[in-house]
Amino acid sequence: MANITKKVSWSSRGDDSARGEATPLLNGAEEVRYTRQQSGGSIFHIGRLSTVELDEEITSEEDSLRRRSLPKEIPHNEKLLSLKFESLDYDNIENQLFLEEERRMSHMGFRCLEISRWVICGLIGVLTGLIACFIDIVVEELAGMKYRIIKENIEKYTEVGGLSISLLLWAVLNSALVMVGGIIVAFFEPIAAGSGIPQIKCYLNGVKIPRVVRLKTLVVKVCGVICSVAGGLAVGKEGPMIHSGAVVAAGVSQGRSTSLKKDFKIFEYFRRDTEKRDFVSAGAAAGVSAAFGAPVGGVLFSLEEGASFWNQMLTWRIFFASMISTFTLNFFLSIYNGQTGNLSYPGLINFGRFESDTLSYNLYEIPLFIVMGAIGGFLGALFNILNYWLTIFRIRYVHRPCLQVMEAMLVAAVTATVSFTMIYFSDDCQPLGQDQTQEDYPLQLFCADGEYNSMASAFFNTPERSVRSLFHNPPGSYNPVTLGVFTLTYFFLACWTYGLAVSAGVFIPSLLIGAAWGRLFGILLAYLPSGTQIWADPGKYALVGAAAQLGGIVRMTLSLTVILVEATGNVTYGLPIMLVLMTSKIVGDYFAEGLYDIHIKLQSVPFLHWEAPATSHWLTAREVMSSPVTCLSRVEKVGTIVDTLSNTSTNHNGFPVVIQDAASDEPGKVCGLILRSQLIVLLKHKVFVERARSRLSQRKLQLKDFRDAYPRFPPIQSIHVSQDERQCMMDLSEFMNPTPYTVPQETSLPRVFKLFRALGLRHLLVVDSENRVVGLVTRKDLARYHLGKHGLEELQLAQT
Amino acid sequence: MANITKKVSWSSRGDDSARGEATPLLNGAEEVRYTRQQSGGSIFHIGRLSTVELDEEITSEEDSLRRRSLPKEIPHNEKLLSLKFESLDYDNIENQLFLEEERRMSHMGFRCLEISRWVICGLIGVLTGLIACFIDIVVEELAGMKYRIIKENIEKYTEVGGLSISLLLWAVLNSALVMVGGIIVAFFEPIAAGSGIPQIKCYLNGVKIPRVVRLKTLVVKVCGVICSVAGGLAVGKEGPMIHSGAVVAAGVSQGRSTSLKKDFKIFEYFRRDTEKRDFVSAGAAAGVSAAFGAPVGGVLFSLEEGASFWNQMLTWRIFFASMISTFTLNFFLSIYNGQTGNLSYPGLINFGRFESDTLSYNLYEIPLFIVMGAIGGFLGALFNILNYWLTIFRIRYVHRPCLQVMEAMLVAAVTATVSFTMIYFSDDCQPLGQDQTQEDYPLQLFCADGEYNSMASAFFNTPERSVRSLFHNPPGSYNPVTLGVFTLTYFFLACWTYGLAVSAGVFIPSLLIGAAWGRLFGILLAYLPSGTQIWADPGKYALVGAAAQLGGIVRMTLSLTVILVEATGNVTYGLPIMLVLMTSKIVGDYFAEGLYDIHIKLQSVPFLHWEAPATSHWLTAREVMSSPVTCLSRVEKVGTIVDTLSNTSTNHNGFPVVIQDAASDEPGKVCGLILRSQLIVLLKHKVFVERARSRLSQRKLQLKDFRDAYPRFPPIQSIHVSQDERQCMMDLSEFMNPTPYTVPQETSLPRVFKLFRALGLRHLLVVDSENRVVGLVTRKDLARYHLGKHGLEELQLAQT
Repeated sequence: MANITKKVSWSSRGDDSARGEATPLLNGAEEVRYTRQQSGGSIFHIGRLSTVELDEEITSEEDSLRRRSLPKEIPHNEKLLSLKFESLDYDNIENQLFLEEERRMSHMGFRCLEISRWVICGLIGVLTGLIACFIDIVVEELAGMKYRIIKENIEKYTEVGGLSISLLLWAVLNSALVMVGGIIVAFFEPIAAGSGIPQIKCYLNGVKIPRVVRLKTLVVKVCGVICSVAGGLAVGKEGPMIHSGAVVAAGVSQGRSTSLKKDFKIFEYFRRDTEKRDFVSAGAAAGVSAAFGAPVGGVLFSLEEGASFWNQMLTWRIFFASMISTFTLNFFLSIYNGQTGNLSYPGLINFGRFESDTLSYNLYEIPLFIVMGAIGGFLGALFNILNYWLTIFRIRYVHRPCLQVMEAMLVAAVTATVSFTMIYFSDDCQPLGQDQTQEDYPLQLFCADGEYNSMASAFFNTPERSVRSLFHNPPGSYNPVTLGVFTLTYFFLACWTYGLAVSAGVFIPSLLIGAAWGRLFGILLAYLPSGTQIWADPGKYALVGAAAQLGGIVRMTLSLTVILVEATGNVTYGLPIMLVLMTSKIVGDYFAEGLYDIHIKLQSVPFLHWEAPATSHWLTAREVMSSPVTCLSRVEKVGTIVDTLSNTSTNHNGFPVVIQDAASDEPGKVCGLILRSQLIVLLKHKVFVERARSRLSQRKLQLKDFRDAYPRFPPIQSIHVSQDERQCMMDLSEFMNPTPYTVPQETSLPRVFKLFRALGLRHLLVVDSENRVVGLVTRKDLARYHLGKHGLEELQLAQT
Repeated sequence: MANITKKVSWSSRGDDSARGEATPLLNGAEEVRYTRQQSGGSIFHIGRLSTVELDEEITSEEDSLRRRSLPKEIPHNEKLLSLKFESLDYDNIENQLFLEEERRMSHMGFRCLEISRWVICGLIGVLTGLIACFIDIVVEELAGMKYRIIKENIEKYTEVGGLSISLLLWAVLNSALVMVGGIIVAFFEPIAAGSGIPQIKCYLNGVKIPRVVRLKTLVVKVCGVICSVAGGLAVGKEGPMIHSGAVVAAGVSQGRSTSLKKDFKIFEYFRRDTEKRDFVSAGAAAGVSAAFGAPVGGVLFSLEEGASFWNQMLTWRIFFASMISTFTLNFFLSIYNGQTGNLSYPGLINFGRFESDTLSYNLYEIPLFIVMGAIGGFLGALFNILNYWLTIFRIRYVHRPCLQVMEAMLVAAVTATVSFTMIYFSDDCQPLGQDQTQEDYPLQLFCADGEYNSMASAFFNTPERSVRSLFHNPPGSYNPVTLGVFTLTYFFLACWTYGLAVSAGVFIPSLLIGAAWGRLFGILLAYLPSGTQIWADPGKYALVGAAAQLGGIVRMTLSLTVILVEATGNVTYGLPIMLVLMTSKIVGDYFAEGLYDIHIKLQSVPFLHWEAPATSHWLTAREVMSSPVTCLSRVEKVGTIVDTLSNTSTNHNGFPVVIQDAASDEPGKVCGLILRSQLIVLLKHKVFVERARSRLSQRKLQLKDFRDAYPRFPPIQSIHVSQDERQCMMDLSEFMNPTPYTVPQETSLPRVFKLFRALGLRHLLVVDSENRVVGLVTRKDLARYHLGKHGLEELQLAQT
């Protein structure tokens, strides 16, 4: 969007400013000068190299060739900003058609719209809850079957010897399940890989991620997550729920499915980015709510990640969706578990009931919690850094779908092998209680009769159950060595697993790692001379450790606190959890970014953070904007429009409409803004002035035509315009947005940023004092500046 | 602000539009026409009448005269918009001085600022917690002393007869305490009356409420609330905490106190509306947090009421303040209660521990909860309507401070009398348990030995304790008649009390009313034939009833849910509370607005809601804006500036700076915006071009000079400008905001509204296609339109 032409000129300007006109740039501290020289030096050089190289790549269509040339620029991947991502338009296009429709609508009409919004949110909640329920039941059944088969096998071979056959069975079962999950993801819908949270973050931020909210993605995601969880990988089924909820929302709110080629002709009013985004927020919240039984946490998650403007009614609707979602899940899971009407299954993960008595904490424990937060922050940062290098490795060498599937299978097999080895060599036997037998799969192995292998209760189980065991098993259920070894192993397994081409979440593995070392921490405290009595319950420390580890990895703040509080079902632990999350964020941020942010950066997504970098006041709109801008006249020749849209080198998406002064050669005065998508629809319907006059087309173009085309507008190449038609004229006045937001050239970057971010804009016009267009600010122009270790840094734009 | 000149012209335009150029206005439904004719008719007439009348009043200084003339317009009070309220400026004034300062600041400097922000939030939390602690302890001691005295007296006279002396003692003690509270509020700081929540809502919304965040207000508020709670009024000490927290925040963040004439010379960077507002949000959140032990609820309250733009770091800081505040309170109250380090006093109101077992609910109870929500909504609306009429009555007849004090004393005496009568005639005796003796004051009265009067446990106690008793006393502690009579009495008492000239909150009385009828509801359910077993615990219904009643009165949504969940300390009840609050809001909104909104409307505050009215798309900036606008030149004559500022008829606060084309007579092109406050500072420092040239003033005016003058800029009358000086010139270029936000004339009202609200603007320039100023949109121009029962309505502007 409007940036490719600028790339080179910007580059040279970067060079100049570091040497020639350095004055305005060197106003800051010494660090700034250092960075700028550096960016003018080595990094910069590479940026330019890659730019040229990548431009050539666009022309070549072969995927393999493209991949092979990638390695050269990979090490600098997070210093680049991809041009392939388009923006969503969260600002209403208030053109004449829209205003006429709004004015025609009565008070009652708006009320009906409001009611439909609530109905949609209710539907989103119900469907999301049902999907969560489906995933949970299928995973339970599949995993149960798998563990029972393996258990029988192990029991058979424990006596007669030859446990390697059991290991083989376990590894093969795991790999087979993961293979299915891997194949559907890698070959059919690669966007369904991972937890989907980074993608939803980007979508809510305003970046169009192709195919992210399609029905096909949802199907692959759901099947994929079932396979990977049942396949015994170190993953959770919670993260993907957020993505699933978002897809449901995007589908339901549009009242149609392009994949199914079905249009229900309802909710047509909501077919635009602004409305759709609101529903997607609700869907994401419903997903969190179903995953953790945390409706308030879900709302906060949506707001933290997506909302640029807090609106009370919207929040309340999101809350409604969340509530319905957790309720639906609760209702059906209660039935499934034979406790109809009991409503004690609010989320996919249940932390189990924490009684206030066992869990009350004392003032002198708070420093301990803070220490645990710091450990969590450190371990989280380590996790992220390791995963970062792994991801770079993957981008470089593991890019073919079949390789990706093989890697996933390898991980599954290794996970099974490691687990088996751990269990095999563990001599930690615990007496078999009454309460474990029901839902766990206790392995006797080499333990005496009436005892079970403690390591197996952590490894030979779904991760959700292992977490719950760590929280609630009575003191003494685990010995410290078991926990230590488990933490270490699981840490690396989880780190290796995240980023595989399977649908999977990182929440549960993080919680599990944290719960393990937290419990270990609690047990070790009991060895302190001050007396074992006060540190009696290691389950409490398991909870705090889990919070610390998760916080250290994902770095969410308020929303994570609330999610954890709701998941534990007890607000007593609110304060410790907050303290721990705060500490782990501060410590973690010192070493590395959050896991999701790392992955977003590695994708070179033009993500807009909350504020412009603090030290960016010396930049103004004039320096930031893209120019020159391709402008159109109010009444423009069809040929010009087609040529403009077809020009691949300037792949613009928004065009200022100007009134050109015939006499002067200066740029015209702004009178509107029109989008590529609108022009495409106009061309498709051949809305030409001449045809209107000759009454060839009776029907006036309506808003409906734009809505029908939304969101997948055809490319310009698919629209045939004859030579005669090229001579026709198109009147844009009715369709353009006559009141686009504008800023003067002198506006500082933070001010531009604030306007852009707060209103969710896609294009912001920069005008001179005469109201003439001099430039255009888009998302990429703003996302390019970020605060690095040495002050303000610029990312290079590239066609990755 | 820019509106007085417009008032009459607007009036006539209003008339015209209903007759002549009616076309654009009648695009909507039939109702619109009806309304507009009506507003052009009777209401309109009165609006104009009052305008003239009120303008005259400004000149007369006598309060009594002014009051006497008020009644005529009171019935239409909520259809007016007062001109006396100014706006806060939540948009940074990015003039040259500011940008230079920002550019000079290093990365480290910004980091230090960020750390100071955290330190301030910590301080806010600590101080708010301490204030809450102080209030709690003093109220406990005072009320304890009072109840002990009365109890002894009653016990003495129960045997010998002559209980009327006890009644007298009770009434006198109550009245005396309330008198002290009333006097300091009515005579010293009337803004400290009530809970302060409407005022804080307005402040966060961007309306400058005079004296609302001053130290004196805080002192009066704290003393006032102690007196009114100890004085036995049907009030709580929780609401005022929010106001107190806000004052603390406003004080601490500025690093000085004007009341104490003390400037610590710290935190000077934060001396502007933008930063101050953020801290006030944190203070309000800390207040909620201390009041209810609900840190997350506090954050949500602040966001729901104040945030126009959600910022992650800000939210996190607010959360920090909330957390510290509840922790401080908890820590000191634990010490006070002799349980050092136990941390079980997170808030002023403790709902007591709800065990999950006793409180689990079943699916078939949900319809019951919804019914209770509807009852709460209805009763809440009734409460609000009664209070509305009462407030109108008060504005009309009870306006002198001494009358207000007398009314408060009357209410105190009546409360005591009613309570006493109720207790006296009640024959509901309950056996004395072991657990009540400690913290309640059980009255034996005419009961047998070893029994106590059940009515007394509701009336003869601080409301917080009564609520707790209703939640937790075992089934059978109250008989239905007692609860019914208590609900009825307390409902009217609470309704009468809210709005008195004392500091007091409405949360606790609402909860108490709700808990009473909720418990009654629970008890009555047990009479159903289906069996008493399942409705065993009326305490559960008391909780739901309390939520329903509170929701029906204040109509808060998400934040209230979280507050109540946190106050109960148990998330199990999240879903029922949400359902109940949602129902009570929907039902309540059908009958009347929320209590706070009613009071804001009665004050004619230009409050901006979340969105422009849905049916306002037919209005454009051209119709909404104030015009003509007084503009200044870049280099302006001092005389002109002084005259402009002194012009009382056009009491503008923002002036567009324009470049006037000498040749043409047209309005000039926008090149900036300057505020009255800035001009005042410039005049005070005599920043004239001539003086700069002649080197009379060596020192260049700095941002510091503006910050020192903030927020109480002197009036123009206090600045002496000699005749010679009037001929000097002032160069505004360095001080004006060179990049004010502008919109074209055709921009629709919702679009203007969105920009204005999202960015927290104070002035928005309306320009034509040549970038010439044609009008100015201020808060009042937008707040004037609201959605009434018959469609879009306009409020009249008046100098109330």
